[in-house]
Amino acid sequence: MTVEDGRLSDRQRISWLRLIRTENVGSATFRGLVDRFGSAEAALEMLPELVISGGARRLPRIPSVAEAEAELDIARRAGAQLVAIGEPDYPPMLRRMDQPQPLIAIRGEPSVFRRPPVAIVGARNASLVGIKMARMLAAELGGQGYAVVSGLARGIDAAAHQASLATGTIAVLAGGLDRPYPPENIELAAGIAARGGAVVSEMPFGWEPRARDFPRRNRIIAGLALGLVVVEAAHRSGSLISARLAGEMGRLVFAVPGSPLDPRAAGTNWLLKQGATLVTEASDIVAEITPLLSNSVPQPAGLAEPPDHSAAPPPGDHDRAGIVEALGPTPVSLDEIIRHSGLHPAQVFTILLELDLAGRLERHAGGAVSLLPDGGR
Amino acid sequence: MTVEDGRLSDRQRISWLRLIRTENVGSATFRGLVDRFGSAEAALEMLPELVISGGARRLPRIPSVAEAEAELDIARRAGAQLVAIGEPDYPPMLRRMDQPQPLIAIRGEPSVFRRPPVAIVGARNASLVGIKMARMLAAELGGQGYAVVSGLARGIDAAAHQASLATGTIAVLAGGLDRPYPPENIELAAGIAARGGAVVSEMPFGWEPRARDFPRRNRIIAGLALGLVVVEAAHRSGSLISARLAGEMGRLVFAVPGSPLDPRAAGTNWLLKQGATLVTEASDIVAEITPLLSNSVPQPAGLAEPPDHSAAPPPGDHDRAGIVEALGPTPVSLDEIIRHSGLHPAQVFTILLELDLAGRLERHAGGAVSLLPDGGR
Repeated sequence: MTVEDGRLSDRQRISWLRLIRTENVGSATFRGLVDRFGSAEAALEMLPELVISGGARRLPRIPSVAEAEAELDIARRAGAQLVAIGEPDYPPMLRRMDQPQPLIAIRGEPSVFRRPPVAIVGARNASLVGIKMARMLAAELGGQGYAVVSGLARGIDAAAHQASLATGTIAVLAGGLDRPYPPENIELAAGIAARGGAVVSEMPFGWEPRARDFPRRNRIIAGLALGLVVVEAAHRSGSLISARLAGEMGRLVFAVPGSPLDPRAAGTNWLLKQGATLVTEASDIVAEITPLLSNSVPQPAGLAEPPDHSAAPPPGDHDRAGIVEALGPTPVSLDEIIRHSGLHPAQVFTILLELDLAGRLERHAGGAVSLLPDGGR
Repeated sequence: MTVEDGRLSDRQRISWLRLIRTENVGSATFRGLVDRFGSAEAALEMLPELVISGGARRLPRIPSVAEAEAELDIARRAGAQLVAIGEPDYPPMLRRMDQPQPLIAIRGEPSVFRRPPVAIVGARNASLVGIKMARMLAAELGGQGYAVVSGLARGIDAAAHQASLATGTIAVLAGGLDRPYPPENIELAAGIAARGGAVVSEMPFGWEPRARDFPRRNRIIAGLALGLVVVEAAHRSGSLISARLAGEMGRLVFAVPGSPLDPRAAGTNWLLKQGATLVTEASDIVAEITPLLSNSVPQPAGLAEPPDHSAAPPPGDHDRAGIVEALGPTPVSLDEIIRHSGLHPAQVFTILLELDLAGRLERHAGGAVSLLPDGGR
């Protein structure tokens, strides 16, 4: 099954949702499974067998059709949709990510994704000057046709959203779409969706955000934007992680300077020392982003036509043991594993999928993988 | 006459002082005259003739021997000395400048010039945070063995001097050594000289600083240092001129960032956008300066042995007219003039010296010259 330019059928969307909501199935595993078995529906059928082959001690929890239908129903009633990666409403920038989310929940106006997006993030305990700066930049960028992306947090994030409410802003949540955090910004989230912007999340409806969900949210913020501006940030703060992720994805990184005696500028000044572009006004951002705009709306890139693996026999237990033996806590590339194992690439893919589903594999940037210690299961 | 490694005789120093204090004789003209005639004394004898050949309507005012002796006497009684380029006490960094001062007045402890020098400059109406930053950097650099160079102005300059009083600081004045400006820093200047630092000036004793003398002072500040740090500076402020001069001389340029909403950071943020090194702590400066230190105390470079011009006949009126014809308000290099004129280089040098002494020539960086409009005389 491929989604080249059309929409998923209702039945396909149910399968996609069940598969992505399955334990141990992340974006990379999802893509691997669809590549291997041709469709999410086929992958779901094979899942129990794969997990057992991977060495899991119990079967993963796979949501039922009824559960998936219930989530779609909740979404529909909340005015939201679950958009698949090759569908027209899927954010074009997200498709460019290393491991894009196969399905993303969107509430609001998806046409906002067609505006060139710039992320503005920063400290929750921002200073008045920082808030003012965030507002200035967001209002100016919004007025010039940019979509302002942020994380709905207190402080800089909220200021950036507020100042670009009228022109279209995108909030990325760490929890489910119906669980905006913090509570004081619930109304802001509703306003964003109602006024031509969008609120997005990769998490299921009803999901209360935990601390570890925020780095995943930060990854989507960075991925959604052409560039990321950090307005105020202390040393070792979350905004610096977002900036690192943005840099790793090839997004532009900007920082607003501040006095070295102001701890809320320690992170942004550090970014500037690392080579971030210094921002004192919106034109500093526009000057760097403009050259990228001709490519800013890439062609829809669906899931690729699955490679033909029919010629390869399924891997045997001996093959599995060999791969597990060869892997360790240090990430290695797929190519290295294939070369080392002497197996058919399709066999290696299958074994890695099995390990992944069994919760024994960690996926890294660039397609590298490592084995989780047994305690990780 | 050359000053390779010894000191000037009293008679030589009188001649040097008379020549450099002569109207229209700057550092470049001084060097040209000594190169051409072999000594300051010989140049003084030729001066009236050269000036007339250059087209001046009146003879320049040449200080008498008695006047020069009087200035030397005032200096001696003020605990100061007039140090010639090539003498051991002459600041080594100044020798590296494009057009170094042949004589400089120094009060205090010349050994401070042997410490690697870093200039710290900035706004007169500095904020408390700026003052604190200047103090921090100056104290830290002083403690690590650097000499802090500044301009004795209010605000950042004074803070930098004060914080490095104990370790040795260098103040450059726009007026005479006995005319520190502003008056509130007269005591600071005395303290600098008394506590192992030095106060320097290229201007005569008794000279009250005028507005146009400050850019000349800024040039010496930049020239004296391996790098120049701007702590706070508004748009188009004098500190930015110092930074430009420092950059042109190949000195490192540093700037302390600040909030874009603080007008006193507009200049430093602008410098950072132009490529200045961002400073939040002294180690940022030290990291860049350290690699230069192996070359930081250059070999004493005296006035070069004069080239042998004896083979060239003196230029004629026709030659002079040709050069004046060829020159205009746009700076051109000496090489171009020599090639264009077809004259012997020595003849071109002589004509340019004449024009210079007659107040008709402007000298630019890199040895280029232009003709001043007639009104400039």
